[in-house]
Amino acid sequence: MPEFMDVHRGMNGISAEDLAAAHAADLAIQSEEGVDFKQAWADPESGHIYCLSEAPSAEAVQRIHERAGHPADEVHPVPLKV
Amino acid sequence: MPEFMDVHRGMNGISAEDLAAAHAADLAIQSEEGVDFKQAWADPESGHIYCLSEAPSAEAVQRIHERAGHPADEVHPVPLKV
Repeated sequence: MPEFMDVHRGMNGISAEDLAAAHAADLAIQSEEGVDFKQAWADPESGHIYCLSEAPSAEAVQRIHERAGHPADEVHPVPLKV
Repeated sequence: MPEFMDVHRGMNGISAEDLAAAHAADLAIQSEEGVDFKQAWADPESGHIYCLSEAPSAEAVQRIHERAGHPADEVHPVPLKV
């Protein structure tokens, strides 16, 4: 399954609880699009969040994020990994 | 040890071999700054690369990337992870 890295901006000041809740909202519906969110990392100071997923397409990743209430600013396939 | 996500842009067309060589160049000197590059993901189409590391500081991450010949465009601490 292809992997994707998506980026959210403007999440300045996000707390650990906010991040956990946002991630849980994705996990609750991700199977409807065949998406598997594997990990998310957040920088409360810059407001950037990075999410790593396996999914059938970038559009599937974005549909889950949109339905969960937090559309990504960018979704990139990452076919190379080391 | 704090974790960091750094981003390189403009690496359009990067190959698996290029990515492996760049990562190896980081690994060869990372201990001199106490950095541990854990994973890197690349999108040859957009030219974005994302590197996850553990390090004493963002500056330490950047010093290794600079000395290896590929300074990052952004280095962000990611104190939150889920």
